Amino acid sequence: MTENYTQEMVSDRRRLHQRPEEGWTEFETTFFIVKRLEKLGFTILMGRRLFKEELIMGRDEHIVEAAMKRAAEHGVSDNFLKRTEGFTGCVGLWDTGRAGPVTAFRFDIDALPIQETDAPEHEANAGCFASERPGLMHACGHDGHTAVGLAVAHWIADHAAKLKGRIKLIFQPAEEGTRGALPMSESGILDDVNYMVGSHIGNACHLGEVGLCISGSMATTKIDVRFTGLSAHAGLAPEKGRSALFAACNAATTLAGIARTSQGETRVSVGKLIAGEGRNVVAAHALMQAEVRGSTEEANQFMTEEVLRITQGIGQTYNVACDCQIVGRATTLMSTPKAIALLDEVARGIGSVKTVKRFDNVGGSEDCTWLIRKVILQGGEAAMFIFGCNHHGHHRGDFCIQDTQSLPVGFEMFTGFLIKTNAC
Amino acid sequence: MTENYTQEMVSDRRRLHQRPEEGWTEFETTFFIVKRLEKLGFTILMGRRLFKEELIMGRDEHIVEAAMKRAAEHGVSDNFLKRTEGFTGCVGLWDTGRAGPVTAFRFDIDALPIQETDAPEHEANAGCFASERPGLMHACGHDGHTAVGLAVAHWIADHAAKLKGRIKLIFQPAEEGTRGALPMSESGILDDVNYMVGSHIGNACHLGEVGLCISGSMATTKIDVRFTGLSAHAGLAPEKGRSALFAACNAATTLAGIARTSQGETRVSVGKLIAGEGRNVVAAHALMQAEVRGSTEEANQFMTEEVLRITQGIGQTYNVACDCQIVGRATTLMSTPKAIALLDEVARGIGSVKTVKRFDNVGGSEDCTWLIRKVILQGGEAAMFIFGCNHHGHHRGDFCIQDTQSLPVGFEMFTGFLIKTNAC
Amino acid sequence: MTENYTQEMVSDRRRLHQRPEEGWTEFETTFFIVKRLEKLGFTILMGRRLFKEELIMGRDEHIVEAAMKRAAEHGVSDNFLKRTEGFTGCVGLWDTGRAGPVTAFRFDIDALPIQETDAPEHEANAGCFASERPGLMHACGHDGHTAVGLAVAHWIADHAAKLKGRIKLIFQPAEEGTRGALPMSESGILDDVNYMVGSHIGNACHLGEVGLCISGSMATTKIDVRFTGLSAHAGLAPEKGRSALFAACNAATTLAGIARTSQGETRVSVGKLIAGEGRNVVAAHALMQAEVRGSTEEANQFMTEEVLRITQGIGQTYNVACDCQIVGRATTLMSTPKAIALLDEVARGIGSVKTVKRFDNVGGSEDCTWLIRKVILQGGEAAMFIFGCNHHGHHRGDFCIQDTQSLPVGFEMFTGFLIKTNAC
Amino acid sequence: MTENYTQEMVSDRRRLHQRPEEGWTEFETTFFIVKRLEKLGFTILMGRRLFKEELIMGRDEHIVEAAMKRAAEHGVSDNFLKRTEGFTGCVGLWDTGRAGPVTAFRFDIDALPIQETDAPEHEANAGCFASERPGLMHACGHDGHTAVGLAVAHWIADHAAKLKGRIKLIFQPAEEGTRGALPMSESGILDDVNYMVGSHIGNACHLGEVGLCISGSMATTKIDVRFTGLSAHAGLAPEKGRSALFAACNAATTLAGIARTSQGETRVSVGKLIAGEGRNVVAAHALMQAEVRGSTEEANQFMTEEVLRITQGIGQTYNVACDCQIVGRATTLMSTPKAIALLDEVARGIGSVKTVKRFDNVGGSEDCTWLIRKVILQGGEAAMFIFGCNHHGHHRGDFCIQDTQSLPVGFEMFTGFLIKTNAC
Repeated sequence: MTENYTQEMVSDRRRLHQRPEEGWTEFETTFFIVKRLEKLGFTILMGRRLFKEELIMGRDEHIVEAAMKRAAEHGVSDNFLKRTEGFTGCVGLWDTGRAGPVTAFRFDIDALPIQETDAPEHEANAGCFASERPGLMHACGHDGHTAVGLAVAHWIADHAAKLKGRIKLIFQPAEEGTRGALPMSESGILDDVNYMVGSHIGNACHLGEVGLCISGSMATTKIDVRFTGLSAHAGLAPEKGRSALFAACNAATTLAGIARTSQGETRVSVGKLIAGEGRNVVAAHALMQAEVRGSTEEANQFMTEEVLRITQGIGQTYNVACDCQIVGRATTLMSTPKAIALLDEVARGIGSVKTVKRFDNVGGSEDCTWLIRKVILQGGEAAMFIFGCNHHGHHRGDFCIQDTQSLPVGFEMFTGFLIKTNAC
Repeated sequence: MTENYTQEMVSDRRRLHQRPEEGWTEFETTFFIVKRLEKLGFTILMGRRLFKEELIMGRDEHIVEAAMKRAAEHGVSDNFLKRTEGFTGCVGLWDTGRAGPVTAFRFDIDALPIQETDAPEHEANAGCFASERPGLMHACGHDGHTAVGLAVAHWIADHAAKLKGRIKLIFQPAEEGTRGALPMSESGILDDVNYMVGSHIGNACHLGEVGLCISGSMATTKIDVRFTGLSAHAGLAPEKGRSALFAACNAATTLAGIARTSQGETRVSVGKLIAGEGRNVVAAHALMQAEVRGSTEEANQFMTEEVLRITQGIGQTYNVACDCQIVGRATTLMSTPKAIALLDEVARGIGSVKTVKRFDNVGGSEDCTWLIRKVILQGGEAAMFIFGCNHHGHHRGDFCIQDTQSLPVGFEMFTGFLIKTNAC
Repeated sequence: MTENYTQEMVSDRRRLHQRPEEGWTEFETTFFIVKRLEKLGFTILMGRRLFKEELIMGRDEHIVEAAMKRAAEHGVSDNFLKRTEGFTGCVGLWDTGRAGPVTAFRFDIDALPIQETDAPEHEANAGCFASERPGLMHACGHDGHTAVGLAVAHWIADHAAKLKGRIKLIFQPAEEGTRGALPMSESGILDDVNYMVGSHIGNACHLGEVGLCISGSMATTKIDVRFTGLSAHAGLAPEKGRSALFAACNAATTLAGIARTSQGETRVSVGKLIAGEGRNVVAAHALMQAEVRGSTEEANQFMTEEVLRITQGIGQTYNVACDCQIVGRATTLMSTPKAIALLDEVARGIGSVKTVKRFDNVGGSEDCTWLIRKVILQGGEAAMFIFGCNHHGHHRGDFCIQDTQSLPVGFEMFTGFLIKTNAC
Repeated sequence: MTENYTQEMVSDRRRLHQRPEEGWTEFETTFFIVKRLEKLGFTILMGRRLFKEELIMGRDEHIVEAAMKRAAEHGVSDNFLKRTEGFTGCVGLWDTGRAGPVTAFRFDIDALPIQETDAPEHEANAGCFASERPGLMHACGHDGHTAVGLAVAHWIADHAAKLKGRIKLIFQPAEEGTRGALPMSESGILDDVNYMVGSHIGNACHLGEVGLCISGSMATTKIDVRFTGLSAHAGLAPEKGRSALFAACNAATTLAGIARTSQGETRVSVGKLIAGEGRNVVAAHALMQAEVRGSTEEANQFMTEEVLRITQGIGQTYNVACDCQIVGRATTLMSTPKAIALLDEVARGIGSVKTVKRFDNVGGSEDCTWLIRKVILQGGEAAMFIFGCNHHGHHRGDFCIQDTQSLPVGFEMFTGFLIKTNAC
């Protein structure tokens, strides 16, 4: 049965792979998805209404505007761009017309600012579907996620007669940087959802493996810190300057020293710092990209508050202005035993799956956790799973997924879940 | 003529050497001075009135009280202690009754928290007049200064008939740490002064040399910084603590990095830091002893303001309270050409003086600069001089002055100056 | 049955409470213990042989010498002091002469540099057994541990006829600072041990509760860091100095910033810093008391290596010498199911015990972990337990244990265990 | 007389202004100069021989190669590029054939990475000679310096019959960043020079003013510091990374805290810092642009050595590699009384010069100081002067010089000097 969808799924994934788009700029991708969903008969929700405005993070309107122009030049219709209201992503709604549960699946659609390798043996080079956009790449498999989502849509349309309740396919923008899920989770689109499932390709699973994510995934906050001081000639009048560079440097090392907490494991990273205008000029500007994590919401909240207070204090210390922007947030992973049990049953029924793993302490951070938490807190059942691929590690220029073998497992997991929950 | 005073001067100095007292606690010393001056017929000004209250710095009332008790036990009368109102130092006033200029001399009287060497060849050990107070020593020669002042007083009384105008002998407490002079300078005692001279023994002059101090001497501010955080078990709940130790450490290294200024040369020192209660406890307390200097008042002011802002900012950064106390201040050295010329003439007339040096850029800091500045700004003539001694360096346990040879030069400089300004 | 021992145990504990001695200086305490054990017929092991020399940590020979003098003045015989070879602690060995297992118990004997409260309602004040040594106190209950050990010894002597195998009562010095157990664990005294049990009073248990310690207790390393620079006058020639203070400050904040590790939870504390000689002198000396912890040996090892490298690097950075001394170490807690099961049975059989708790993640650090690990790694059974007391928190001047009610539980746990393992 | 040269000088300056080239890449500029000098009959020295190889600093061969390609595209002949051997700048030698002194003048030729303003009133916009190269601009007047040098060359050729000795016109590359002069000074081209004069436009002089530079100009060292650590995922395995970013930050704040020195005033600047690859990645790379200055060579040497030691120490501290490159150096300004006196006389003879200033403490840094020092140390006479222009400040996008009025003064100073030293 799956074979019927595999060809299309692989073809879609490869097409998406060629046009990677960063978070909040996925206009070509969204256009592709919406056209397909509409053709299949789905009702489309899109635009601002998908996001609770005050929770939108890590979005730069100048970049969005430029992306819309670029999309227009690549064949996205003006009319469609208007419908987006500048917001990428969409929800495809299928109402069977029959009473039954509301089941939602999350597929994230954004790519990364990573240069794809030009090694000829690389999957996308060998298969002639490498990224056409220099410096951008689907290096985390969201192209595959999206393709699975579209194949699931196709399957739903094909099997509509045998389904009950309603199904929501959430195509989420801006998962990288953990930006898109929180404002989606509070927009109202989940308010009626009974079952919620998200997934990721790869990670700790290789081909033949499915992983059930019980808990883990650290809560995280991504923060941009900007210091603004005052320029002065460093030789002639150093005392007239106020150095944003020294402020940023002290802030960075002080952030590294935030106390460990007994409320859970924590992380703190200052991954990027750009400061100063010239060697002999007191630096007027500095930008620091930081993030914190916690194995509990409390621990992450503690870390976040520390960052905000420390950077303000350092601003005062160096007499420079300090502006902190929270540009991304994820929470910890919850799941319900029932959802895990359903996914377990489905996984064990898939022929190509040799091993079903259980992860009690999923590493990293993932913002699907917001969608899951929302549904669980309102009484629903929710969980995440991982389906394997033989990658060399995510976020690398040579990341690959062996789409023909990996994607069908994702597809079977989602459709198998629907059979458990929404079959007549 | 000088020989008549040498014996007494040396004897006084050695007696004072045995009872060193730190700044603001010189009760035995003040008692000794006042008794002598009164016997010679001087009018005594003492107590609170010698100091402008809001400018008093680096004074701990607990320490003062303990010192008064100790002085009482060493023979200082209760009646005298009452007269002091808790304030050491005094001014001996001699009014000739004849019209003439008002001339003031400054003699500083305090000692240092330095352990005198027990080397038998050390001057005070060989002469049996070593400090009786462990850990305290006249290691900067203020015992000699005081003895010179008393000998000058004796000379004035002896030569009263040949003098005109008025003479003020200022015995200043708490020169170490540059604490005593500023509040004295603004107390009113200098308001009528026409000539003001201060001096120091040693420094860049050895026996046979007198130095005229034209300018230099860095302005300085001494600052005690206290951070108060919150204790917590560093293993069980580190996040509940707020570390005064880490705050102090960051403050110290940040202070070191205060920008150089084009307004003059600067210095910054954090010489002492005591922080924390135990290895496994988040430190609740830290005390930092800092000082800044500037070759101009502007530069020192810049440094002082930086320290105050930085320490507050760091307090916020670490969420700990920060209290800054200014515990000492000196300004830069001014002098008037006329005062320098008079001192030059006097020095060239002293037989044992082989060389008269001129210092355009006196090193270190000295709070007599406040008294000099005050007199010059109100139109008077003022300067400092140095008279030599063959020391190994000040503020050392083996500092020595060869009193029999060095003190007479100081005596002749002051009395010679009086002959120039206040002889009938 | 226990009542027979309670009076003596309470009396012993109160007597020990009056003479608190810090780690490695417990000469009066050891004298007290050895006299009693010898009287009861135990064979005594004492002196250097109890410790593997190269693992001895946190011991200052000057302090030990002074302690021996003080002990001599308080009635410890010269002959006994000679037997100690300068090393406190002892092992009381009871050989039943019958084949059977070797069972070892650990009782730690040292006190803390904490001033006992003078509040009249405080247990020791009300009972007239407060510390006679100012600034020192049994504020962690090791007086009670020792008293329990002596009562267990008494019980063994009383019940010798019904026991088999051999029993070792280890009276360990210097548990505070986690110094004494590691060199004891590798001295050979445990090589033949089959069962090993340690315990602590209080912590997460109150009266009526016993806690079984499954795992937890962070591995820790205590490190003293000394920086030695070069003095210089901070105003006259700051460039000639090399500041140990600034080095220590940078080291402290850099240590705080050691990376979190995925190998386990970690801690880092710089609890104490003493640096510098005077405000206007470049600081020549700094001493920093630091410690790290890890929820795994790997994590603690990572932290320890980071501290050693960072402090050396900072020494180079500031051109000052850096000397690191490891002055204490503990490992994580292991236990064997069998030992836990035996303790569980014993605890459930004690009338005054209402609740038996199980702790999977014991907080803090404890060096009995070395003794336990040693025995387990050689194939033995070992564990720790906690017996309750209604304290206000350990390491406080008002710590109390209600000895009449708490100590009997400890006594019954140990003797009950012996009945399980060493009864004929 | 000057009028004859003014038109050409202004025209040359404006042409040069349109083609600004950064240090070590001045191929178009050098081509322009050499063609002119050759046409006038000068002997040309150019290529590697102008620079002592081991003293070449701040030069990137990739950038030089790209610049040569760009120059080729803008009309510089391949043949000429070959003659340069990749090295810009040249010396024009005029040998009168008559015995007499050797006189050398320095004209620096490089531009700055500054975007010229597009304000229509800006001199270069109004006059239609604005920079054709985006982001690059002659914002320090070196276009004017070069034009003056060419006019002086023209004057020499015109007045050859009345001159004796030899004249060397040194067109120096890479003055910005103080890179070009040191390797030129030790290449041998100055070995026979008796008189050496350099100049700068603007600074503390406005139109109608000439400034004689007696002393000052801080010695400086420009240093690029690169830290190389190891990437790791900041959430999954932070302990596997080694952060070049944190190392750079600690290094920056530690550099700011280098001790003040009694050997002279100092400066330290970290003007630029670029570190890290991504928010959630331990940073593997950091580049820091630093510089130090000293009012004496000793002070600058002290600062330089501190930077080198500190950055290495910090590298060890963070376990990252540290590479320091000295990319520029200048020394302090010396001058000889005779050279100053000659320039004074010349300046007073220029009609448009209303004021001749003397600067005892020239601010900033300038690498012509190396050429001057070299000539003075071998017994020659040398100095610098400033000729005014009504600028808004150097190194700004709106810097202007009013060439028609300012350049003639520079021209008259140099030719007037030649009349004093090399007229028959």
